[in-house]
Amino acid sequence: MTQGRAPLAITLGDPAGIGPEVILGAWARLRAERRSPHAFVVGGPELLRSCGEAMGIDCPIVPIAEPAEAMLASAVGLPVLAVLDGPLTPSRPTPDSARLALASLRWGVSLVLAGEAVGLVTAPVSKNALAMVGWDYPGQTEFLADACGRPYRDAVMMLAGPSLRTVPLTVHVALSEVPGLISSDLITHKARIVAAGLRRDFGVLQPRLAIAALNPHAGEGGQFGDEEARIIAPAIAALHAEGIDAFGPVPGDALFTPRARAGYDAALCMYHDQALIPLKALEFDEGVNVTLGLPIIRTSPDHGTAFDIAGQGKADPGAMAAAIVMAAEMAQARASVDG
Amino acid sequence: MTQGRAPLAITLGDPAGIGPEVILGAWARLRAERRSPHAFVVGGPELLRSCGEAMGIDCPIVPIAEPAEAMLASAVGLPVLAVLDGPLTPSRPTPDSARLALASLRWGVSLVLAGEAVGLVTAPVSKNALAMVGWDYPGQTEFLADACGRPYRDAVMMLAGPSLRTVPLTVHVALSEVPGLISSDLITHKARIVAAGLRRDFGVLQPRLAIAALNPHAGEGGQFGDEEARIIAPAIAALHAEGIDAFGPVPGDALFTPRARAGYDAALCMYHDQALIPLKALEFDEGVNVTLGLPIIRTSPDHGTAFDIAGQGKADPGAMAAAIVMAAEMAQARASVDG
Repeated sequence: MTQGRAPLAITLGDPAGIGPEVILGAWARLRAERRSPHAFVVGGPELLRSCGEAMGIDCPIVPIAEPAEAMLASAVGLPVLAVLDGPLTPSRPTPDSARLALASLRWGVSLVLAGEAVGLVTAPVSKNALAMVGWDYPGQTEFLADACGRPYRDAVMMLAGPSLRTVPLTVHVALSEVPGLISSDLITHKARIVAAGLRRDFGVLQPRLAIAALNPHAGEGGQFGDEEARIIAPAIAALHAEGIDAFGPVPGDALFTPRARAGYDAALCMYHDQALIPLKALEFDEGVNVTLGLPIIRTSPDHGTAFDIAGQGKADPGAMAAAIVMAAEMAQARASVDG
Repeated sequence: MTQGRAPLAITLGDPAGIGPEVILGAWARLRAERRSPHAFVVGGPELLRSCGEAMGIDCPIVPIAEPAEAMLASAVGLPVLAVLDGPLTPSRPTPDSARLALASLRWGVSLVLAGEAVGLVTAPVSKNALAMVGWDYPGQTEFLADACGRPYRDAVMMLAGPSLRTVPLTVHVALSEVPGLISSDLITHKARIVAAGLRRDFGVLQPRLAIAALNPHAGEGGQFGDEEARIIAPAIAALHAEGIDAFGPVPGDALFTPRARAGYDAALCMYHDQALIPLKALEFDEGVNVTLGLPIIRTSPDHGTAFDIAGQGKADPGAMAAAIVMAAEMAQARASVDG
């Protein structure tokens, strides 16, 4: 697998979580499938070596001094930037493990912004653990938006699997607040970012965007809810006027049948569960969280730190492997689009 | 296939919709698979004959005078009660087609209540078409509750497919109204009916009920929404105290992964799309709508009249076939439980 000259940077995530083991597991799996990515881990060579030994994962660690060494090193094993490191303490998040997670993230994004890495794959962090060391972002995505000098609202989360891509327009809010947060501006703003992202990073020349309804049966002609006529349809009309191929509002339950899924490149959903339920039902453990709208390429596995099972060999590296592969494909698509 | 002595009654639905063609298609399919059900259609022998001829469906029609003749007749073709009939006018609902749909439904339920039929499979009707002839029920389910002398709230809709059963606790209401409609009483009332229905009609001796959360991540400990702690958890505790194996609240997006689905017999969902999105994503065209909580067995295919495609050979009879098979299995399970 190639994705242009620079390698991908993979952050450690919270080392007390399942980040280290799914990184090693993903690397071993991709290597066995002869799909080794051009990538390196941002810190933790001794920590990752201990983790591999403890868990019996066959993944030699190759400490490197800078990203440019990743290509040669990867012939031998997993390249890991050697400056940052710490002890392996699975399941026990501490201020030290949070500091290491944060240092890996900071360093990773600075390498991508400097052009030394072509994209960022982030292992999971714990917001609560990071709060212990003074971090006050809602999540890694907002941190990255800030690092890129972009407002939070430009960072759009897309969940992507082999047969489905969904975008939740509202995310971590109570269901009762969702109707008040949906606006035509929100829909058009995020749809433009999604369309541009699909073109630039996914090689989709004419993205087709399905826009979900908020209410069951799209409100059945206004009988139960008018957001479709009042908010969603005008947004779709505005997108059309800009040449974006958006359609809907499609009733939520009609949007994810096999036939419906064949008709669009991404579904824009009004709330978290509308986007996440079909993705997790259909894509099993292979869901990738992609951040669109930032200048950098960024993916992450669609799971958390899972402190409760860290170090037990139970974590499935499938989502991390999928996140690495998707970032590599995005980098390749972007290189070909940008020339 | 046997399901006790009496046959199933299949209503015509609105004859201007896809009801007649999916009944014929389902019968032909089940016959070809050597799974002919013990059943008859409530009215429409000439209408069904015309439909079969027009659409090229190989399904001989055998007019019968009473349900007891269905068994012998079914050796030759599809038994159809001969008193009701009307012309075939696909795609053009009229007061006459609505009257025929209503007569078939009325007669069907009276035969089941009289013990001449063992259960009811209803083809789709149009609420708007029925309103032309003075019908003012929200749907067939409420009509059937009334016919059985039960309050609407006792008739619980369950969507069932080969690998998933879901129950929407609220149905055709705006999403903004859902949080105000969820109550502990609603959850416990419907959960009791679902548990009893799974025991009596599905042979599930110890039903396991997963109760969905309303908010994303089940509100993340109250950070976005408190309905989980305030309403849903107390309902689950009350169900436990009665010996019902209910658990949750489970975040919506965690509820429909393959692993999660293996852990329950039915998922009780807080709103329409939470229940219908995973069902339609996973069960394709095989979703069956089951009414629990009434004294009669009742199933229907999970689709509408589809006036726009009626008579064109496009309608998939899979859901009707699944509805017939499920009603037959329910009748058999009930006969064995009731002795």
